[in-house]
Amino acid sequence: MQPSDPARALSHRAGEILERLRRLRPRVHVLTSPVAAQRSADVLTAAGAIPSMTIRVRDVVDFVRAADALVVNLGMLDAERELAARLAVGQAIRRRTPWLLDPVKLELSGARNTLTHELLAQSPRVVRLNRCEATALVGSSEPEVVAAWARRAGLVLAVSGPTDLVTDGRRTLEIGNGTALLDRLTATGCALSALTGAFLAVHGDPFEAAAACTLVYGVAAEVAAFEAAGPGTLAARLLDSLYALTPTLLHERARVR
Amino acid sequence: MQPSDPARALSHRAGEILERLRRLRPRVHVLTSPVAAQRSADVLTAAGAIPSMTIRVRDVVDFVRAADALVVNLGMLDAERELAARLAVGQAIRRRTPWLLDPVKLELSGARNTLTHELLAQSPRVVRLNRCEATALVGSSEPEVVAAWARRAGLVLAVSGPTDLVTDGRRTLEIGNGTALLDRLTATGCALSALTGAFLAVHGDPFEAAAACTLVYGVAAEVAAFEAAGPGTLAARLLDSLYALTPTLLHERARVR
Amino acid sequence: MQPSDPARALSHRAGEILERLRRLRPRVHVLTSPVAAQRSADVLTAAGAIPSMTIRVRDVVDFVRAADALVVNLGMLDAERELAARLAVGQAIRRRTPWLLDPVKLELSGARNTLTHELLAQSPRVVRLNRCEATALVGSSEPEVVAAWARRAGLVLAVSGPTDLVTDGRRTLEIGNGTALLDRLTATGCALSALTGAFLAVHGDPFEAAAACTLVYGVAAEVAAFEAAGPGTLAARLLDSLYALTPTLLHERARVR
Repeated sequence: MQPSDPARALSHRAGEILERLRRLRPRVHVLTSPVAAQRSADVLTAAGAIPSMTIRVRDVVDFVRAADALVVNLGMLDAERELAARLAVGQAIRRRTPWLLDPVKLELSGARNTLTHELLAQSPRVVRLNRCEATALVGSSEPEVVAAWARRAGLVLAVSGPTDLVTDGRRTLEIGNGTALLDRLTATGCALSALTGAFLAVHGDPFEAAAACTLVYGVAAEVAAFEAAGPGTLAARLLDSLYALTPTLLHERARVR
Repeated sequence: MQPSDPARALSHRAGEILERLRRLRPRVHVLTSPVAAQRSADVLTAAGAIPSMTIRVRDVVDFVRAADALVVNLGMLDAERELAARLAVGQAIRRRTPWLLDPVKLELSGARNTLTHELLAQSPRVVRLNRCEATALVGSSEPEVVAAWARRAGLVLAVSGPTDLVTDGRRTLEIGNGTALLDRLTATGCALSALTGAFLAVHGDPFEAAAACTLVYGVAAEVAAFEAAGPGTLAARLLDSLYALTPTLLHERARVR
Repeated sequence: MQPSDPARALSHRAGEILERLRRLRPRVHVLTSPVAAQRSADVLTAAGAIPSMTIRVRDVVDFVRAADALVVNLGMLDAERELAARLAVGQAIRRRTPWLLDPVKLELSGARNTLTHELLAQSPRVVRLNRCEATALVGSSEPEVVAAWARRAGLVLAVSGPTDLVTDGRRTLEIGNGTALLDRLTATGCALSALTGAFLAVHGDPFEAAAACTLVYGVAAEVAAFEAAGPGTLAARLLDSLYALTPTLLHERARVR
């Protein structure tokens, strides 16, 4: 099967950004939960980025100053990380460092829902979430509704699911790569958010960065699934794939419309 | 070799519970240590459950309300998690949500020992621990002593070791599955505690749930060990086994008396 | 190729210490970051040691009392761990328990730099760090400069890099084992620090302990890399190698001068 035109365009762009990431080795500061920390750092490191993760209030501003992108993940949010997130985002805005918000399980917690809305007012370039969280935030996971919301909010929404959706309201792509086996492993969405931060760090158009990262992660996961007997070997092979992924493989496997 | 009668009965029941778990996908809230968090969540997710792990005092009651079971692990206990544990257990009792206690290394810390005894008064359905911890709690790891203690306390004790022991004082099973290689990997007992929470979530008899989970985990580990060159590949293969385990395999491999 | 004399001497000593470690199963208390906790504990456990990791102020002194070595890692330092580190080091000094300092990213944070210097005054047996951190601490990563600093400070410096350097100022070894693929996995330096604690626990000469551990870890990593398709399978195989490593393999592969 020949790749579609959007598949060709996105895989070409994704290959370019991935090669730039490997060359520039951007620093990404990630505020995330203990359960997602190692997997997120491993994914970033395998792809070629350099993660840092401190949540300490008196250190976080220094670390964000040294970073090329910031990722704020609200999973297992605690009081210190909440304060660190506010300080980190303030510093990112002052330095025009791109930052991404992953409002994990905002539908289950009033505190996270409140913080999500406060942080949305501070211009994240990308909000990355799953369908359930998108429905809680936007009212629906339908492409048109999500796109309209993104346009009004002036940001990129990247919604993961069986088909991933990336939109800035003006442009919308649906990406069909990935594997259902990812759902049987913890924190794979959190790790995708972390990796999207690295793409934002090396590419100025946040829509293209988020779409390219979604494609790279999906292709890496489906290639990993060929070699995997289940979620445990998938976890190991996912890092191997991200490390070894080539532009050719992206081009051959991209399913985009 | 033909399976014994207890092996046949338990493997049959374990197969039923495992299939129900995969169909119902219960939510399990796990309060655990940073070092055990990812492995515990991966084990739950591979088996088909949905973990959550927040320890934040203002969120934990909401998360326990949405959960089908609660697991309280005292490893690396800190002050916030201690308070969260009290709130979480209170909520579990109000909603009659089954909960499990894993009093990690209570013998090394006066604070954990005190908290263990306070929590034991709040009717955990199951207390899961290793032989060393059982000796510290019960005074011995001998089956008769453990069983008598469980009967007086009105709960299930699940003691892991070369042979695992599960008892409610009235019924006692010894399960000889597993692999010594598990001892060369960190937090495998903590992960078993988390998984036992998922079994409690979908089966009303806590003795059967704990025994079935012990069997499933032991068979999954020994099957994983066939493919493993050491503890690292064992960790990956353990998740694969839990994902793929069949009732037939449980039946063929159960060693129970 | 015949091994050099230093290679022969160090691999012989490393084999002895590793076998003692497996026989004695020392307890190592490790104060480290959430992102490094599981990998550090897995490395210790695979090699035969028994890790504990609590940072709680009211528990940490009890855990250090029960430990044969202490490792203090400043990655993702938070206020509670900073206080725990002070208490833990005080207890280690009182009991003459050997302890190791890993001043992660001290160059990025004023708070860590201050704490590093405060802790250096409390006689760690070994300071383990990478070249970037060594340059920040010592002013250079050149062997002569590092050795002179170690001699003045009266401790062992173990600096990891493409070639690892271990020196107490009087004796200096350069160890060329390892694999560049380790850099594509997170917290592998933190895990080496944790493992060095286990070597300190069973061998009284901290220079030999640190050099032996550096050799063991490097050989285990390069053997793991033969079987690895990338950083994910490397992570699994590294634990397998540490579990299975033989004195013969150390002898055959040691590159030391």
